[in-house]
Amino acid sequence: MTRHTLCDTTEGTCGHTDAEHQKMSMVTLFTPAGVVAKAAPLKLAAKRLKALGYEVSIDADALAKHQRFAGDDATRLAALHRVAEQAPSIALATRGGYGMTRLLDGIDWALIARSVEQGTRWVGQSDLTSLQLGLLAHTKSAAGLHTWAGPLACDDFGRAESDGGVDDVTQDCFTEAMDGALEAVGFRTEAGFDGVDVKGTLWGGNLCVLNSLLGTPHMPRIKGGILFLEDVNEHPYRIERNLLQLQQAGILDAQKAIVLGAFSAWRKSPLDRGYTLKSAIEAVRARTRTPILTGLPFGHVPTKVCLPVGAKVTLAVQGRDAFMGWDHF
Amino acid sequence: MTRHTLCDTTEGTCGHTDAEHQKMSMVTLFTPAGVVAKAAPLKLAAKRLKALGYEVSIDADALAKHQRFAGDDATRLAALHRVAEQAPSIALATRGGYGMTRLLDGIDWALIARSVEQGTRWVGQSDLTSLQLGLLAHTKSAAGLHTWAGPLACDDFGRAESDGGVDDVTQDCFTEAMDGALEAVGFRTEAGFDGVDVKGTLWGGNLCVLNSLLGTPHMPRIKGGILFLEDVNEHPYRIERNLLQLQQAGILDAQKAIVLGAFSAWRKSPLDRGYTLKSAIEAVRARTRTPILTGLPFGHVPTKVCLPVGAKVTLAVQGRDAFMGWDHF
Repeated sequence: MTRHTLCDTTEGTCGHTDAEHQKMSMVTLFTPAGVVAKAAPLKLAAKRLKALGYEVSIDADALAKHQRFAGDDATRLAALHRVAEQAPSIALATRGGYGMTRLLDGIDWALIARSVEQGTRWVGQSDLTSLQLGLLAHTKSAAGLHTWAGPLACDDFGRAESDGGVDDVTQDCFTEAMDGALEAVGFRTEAGFDGVDVKGTLWGGNLCVLNSLLGTPHMPRIKGGILFLEDVNEHPYRIERNLLQLQQAGILDAQKAIVLGAFSAWRKSPLDRGYTLKSAIEAVRARTRTPILTGLPFGHVPTKVCLPVGAKVTLAVQGRDAFMGWDHF
Repeated sequence: MTRHTLCDTTEGTCGHTDAEHQKMSMVTLFTPAGVVAKAAPLKLAAKRLKALGYEVSIDADALAKHQRFAGDDATRLAALHRVAEQAPSIALATRGGYGMTRLLDGIDWALIARSVEQGTRWVGQSDLTSLQLGLLAHTKSAAGLHTWAGPLACDDFGRAESDGGVDDVTQDCFTEAMDGALEAVGFRTEAGFDGVDVKGTLWGGNLCVLNSLLGTPHMPRIKGGILFLEDVNEHPYRIERNLLQLQQAGILDAQKAIVLGAFSAWRKSPLDRGYTLKSAIEAVRARTRTPILTGLPFGHVPTKVCLPVGAKVTLAVQGRDAFMGWDHF
């Protein structure tokens, strides 16, 4: 096992001390929402992360169980606050599910913000979207705090070899982002957006979870941003309904660009009669001037990039090649 | 076929002329959202409504088809406006599905309001919730306009005999409500609400559809109201997430009572581990002082009452017997 060279430079030339490297490489795995029903994926994730050079710590209640939750609300809230107080270099959620919503009114947002200022990279997706967006809603945008939309320990690093194992792109993107070396992601988008060149605050995540914040104090009010969205197990008419809600709420028009990731694992209905995900996207495009790009490798799919939620990013398209870039973090 | 005595009095004693009776008994069936894939339930509904004494007219585009919609957006919007201009005594939606959301920004709300003032009783549920709530959002509450949450032509009056036929309670409640004779509905609720006695504007409908209005100009801002909710095919964790969104948005606390109808046709998950609809309701109750009653016979179930959306109602509970009453309309 070699120590991961977290600052991505030739060994000994980065200027960091060994102690700094060690602190930078600490990963805490925690479970803020749905129960981790079986320990095997979590153990496998920890093993693989160790093999990548990280020092892995599993939160005491990561395997707690209460109904469909990883412990009751008090247990999960305490776990979240405990991780924030410990301020590891990386706080990686084990999985999503449902459960963050119950905690939102009770979260000590200043504590979470302080952990980010101390260098903690919060990583996850799905239900964790509400933590990531809530943080933006409850801190001054000038603070420039960002968390990372990215993999989940069990879903990604805990994926069995028989199920395809860890995706290479996901792993590489994660280690680069955690090292502070990742400064852009590129993807192939649809034709028709050549020349798009915008800059704004990157925000978004899971569409259903984002919409579940509408009307509440936990919804950030971001204008001139770049909004990325994904979802799973949602029929296109539901995706459309959510996107039209964002349009009717004035949110789509207020952004510089919308970037869609994967909308996966939905089932066709006999009532569709030719209505598809493409129809849904076209219906939304017809109602806003904001460009709506597709193709972002992010969502409930094996291959996913890491994205700095809350950071200023640039989005540029040349032909069908899209690039999203940001400053080194 | 006998003419339905719409004002529910002994023939000849009500003071209405025959022409007034005839106008009062006109029902127009229209399709504002999802496609009516097969004509049979619509024809059966029309036949049964005629047998009840109504003069039934089927809107020209009630069977229009465009993907999963009853015609494209322009067709459905034109149909809605056409029905409002005709101002029949009863405008009964054929079915729900998805599609109203696309029309909301284009609806001539003053035209819909005028039809209500002229005596049209708009009836339906499910996706029609957005029309009913949008009308409240876009008209002055002092106007006291109300529509009717109630059956759908195809789903209820078009239900095949082999599938149970028309529910007696649903039919009786509909005819009484349309006659202006219905002045209360009673239902058995859970223990623990004895003595509840409140008055306020009745509003609500389908939970998902209501939540899809949050943050948009189509969401009414009703305080001190009585909010009724139902849904179908939604797992309790999704019902809970929607209810907690209403709580976090300050809406539950601002009501005098919440009344839950049926939450039907959801499937258990192996991850539930004892989490049920009851758990969801308890989680919401723990977060608001507003009483949350259950047992309202309304939703995507055969037996459903008619409820005047937008009207002032009283809700009183004695023991486990709940009564919701309103003035004669």
